[in-house]
Amino acid sequence: MVEVIDGKQVAASVIETVKSANAALEAAKGVRTGLAVIIVGDDPASHTYVSSKSRMAKECGFKSVQHTLPVETSQEELAALVAALNADPSIHGILVQLPLPRHLDSEAIIQSILPEKDVDGLSVVNAGKLATGDLKTGLVSCTPAGAMVFVRRTHGDDLSGLNATVIGRSNLFGKPMAQLLLNANATVTIAHSRTKDLAGICRNADILVAAVGRPEMVKADWVKPGATVIDVGINRIAAPERGEGKTRLVGDVAFAEVSPVAAVITPVPGGVGPMTIAMLMANTVIAAHRSAGLTPPVFQ
Amino acid sequence: MVEVIDGKQVAASVIETVKSANAALEAAKGVRTGLAVIIVGDDPASHTYVSSKSRMAKECGFKSVQHTLPVETSQEELAALVAALNADPSIHGILVQLPLPRHLDSEAIIQSILPEKDVDGLSVVNAGKLATGDLKTGLVSCTPAGAMVFVRRTHGDDLSGLNATVIGRSNLFGKPMAQLLLNANATVTIAHSRTKDLAGICRNADILVAAVGRPEMVKADWVKPGATVIDVGINRIAAPERGEGKTRLVGDVAFAEVSPVAAVITPVPGGVGPMTIAMLMANTVIAAHRSAGLTPPVFQ
Repeated sequence: MVEVIDGKQVAASVIETVKSANAALEAAKGVRTGLAVIIVGDDPASHTYVSSKSRMAKECGFKSVQHTLPVETSQEELAALVAALNADPSIHGILVQLPLPRHLDSEAIIQSILPEKDVDGLSVVNAGKLATGDLKTGLVSCTPAGAMVFVRRTHGDDLSGLNATVIGRSNLFGKPMAQLLLNANATVTIAHSRTKDLAGICRNADILVAAVGRPEMVKADWVKPGATVIDVGINRIAAPERGEGKTRLVGDVAFAEVSPVAAVITPVPGGVGPMTIAMLMANTVIAAHRSAGLTPPVFQ
Repeated sequence: MVEVIDGKQVAASVIETVKSANAALEAAKGVRTGLAVIIVGDDPASHTYVSSKSRMAKECGFKSVQHTLPVETSQEELAALVAALNADPSIHGILVQLPLPRHLDSEAIIQSILPEKDVDGLSVVNAGKLATGDLKTGLVSCTPAGAMVFVRRTHGDDLSGLNATVIGRSNLFGKPMAQLLLNANATVTIAHSRTKDLAGICRNADILVAAVGRPEMVKADWVKPGATVIDVGINRIAAPERGEGKTRLVGDVAFAEVSPVAAVITPVPGGVGPMTIAMLMANTVIAAHRSAGLTPPVFQ
């Protein structure tokens, strides 16, 4: 019988850990974790994301600050805001919602965030720390960090002897995910669009992580019996069975046919999705602990 | 018939490219490439390495500066020297010979070198640039960069459809090598001491790179017929056949038995070894070009 991971429930338990860590930090040092979220322009989807992040930060007991800037904000104005937040000791995490309006240089802005406040894990310094296995001072991109919580809950901290395959090699997910798995002692294969015999390579994986953005690409015969399958894809496809013009969300894994083969699987929606925002809160409370000279909590 | 790569000859051709690039840079901009090498203490092996680096830099036509500091040099004195070299526009590459005497914090010194002068590719910023595929502004650690020259000479720039396996996951070699192979579109597996069925995983590799430090570990039946085998190990073993107390160098690959199976193989010594110093010169002339606003040469 396959175990379907309940991402909402795991995310909720991460949030509980964040709340108690934040409360303990405040009790010990009088420091409240501070998260600043910056949004530029009027994109409705971005505003929805930012609102849920700000709301979740408040729910965690954080000092939550949202900076909503007009679409015509200049590079200099945005850079000045980031610099002010970098210098503000009450702010431990800074998040710039992407995409920024086209006239702005996102990369320069992201790289100007102090690495220790870069709770999205996007700075080149945090990428380098992850790449060299320095998880003690670095911050890890939220979605792979969330997927690793699932892996740890299933397999423990030490993946020695397990083969893990990541399909997809993006800087946001595939590469950091592979590095996290390697750091936990898995034997790691990174496959992608240029891979030959992708099915055969996936069939060797005890832990299969799909992050390609191709609806239901991973079929039952790509999966080793008893594997852990983590689906990071979120694809909207037509769902005429729900009525004309209706759509639904599916992952990169053909859930219905893969479920009988796998031992553990994440659904879409409700799997990795809810973990991203939870790990953002986790990163922020980690950053606040480090800034106060305390050992941060561990998220299992 | 297996092709045995002549590392000395490939290294010599890299050095030729460095020389002409340095000459062209001097002609175009009046800038001579500058390499500063710092050595602290009296370790004879380190002095030998540093002398060959300084000599090679001179042979390339570089401004070659060697700073030989006494073993009792303090952290502050060494840091001050690095800071002065960081600020010196005539110096494009800074190399601190490791290991440093025990009382010094090597990591702090290495990370204080400006990333654009870090020709050993050891800074966290260069690790992050490599990890995120930014080879245009980053500097890559010399030994993996040298191994990639062999890969490119055999397979070209695009490794799409090829499986590459790296045995070993050190920050100095295994991890950057895997990232370079991935960046060239190979499907990459990173195996290591915790890997189960290492032989089986290696047998799937079109390009097999061994960097574990275990004499002649990779046997003939670990190798896919027709594979390219790159041996990064340098192990000194007893060689009683040469006389009592004699030793010889071998790689991580059992050269004699693997050669009939592979299509291309590197010997030890004389394979990857000579490439390291050549790629140090390559990195330095690349750094000098970037500093002058010119497109650096490509090393094929």
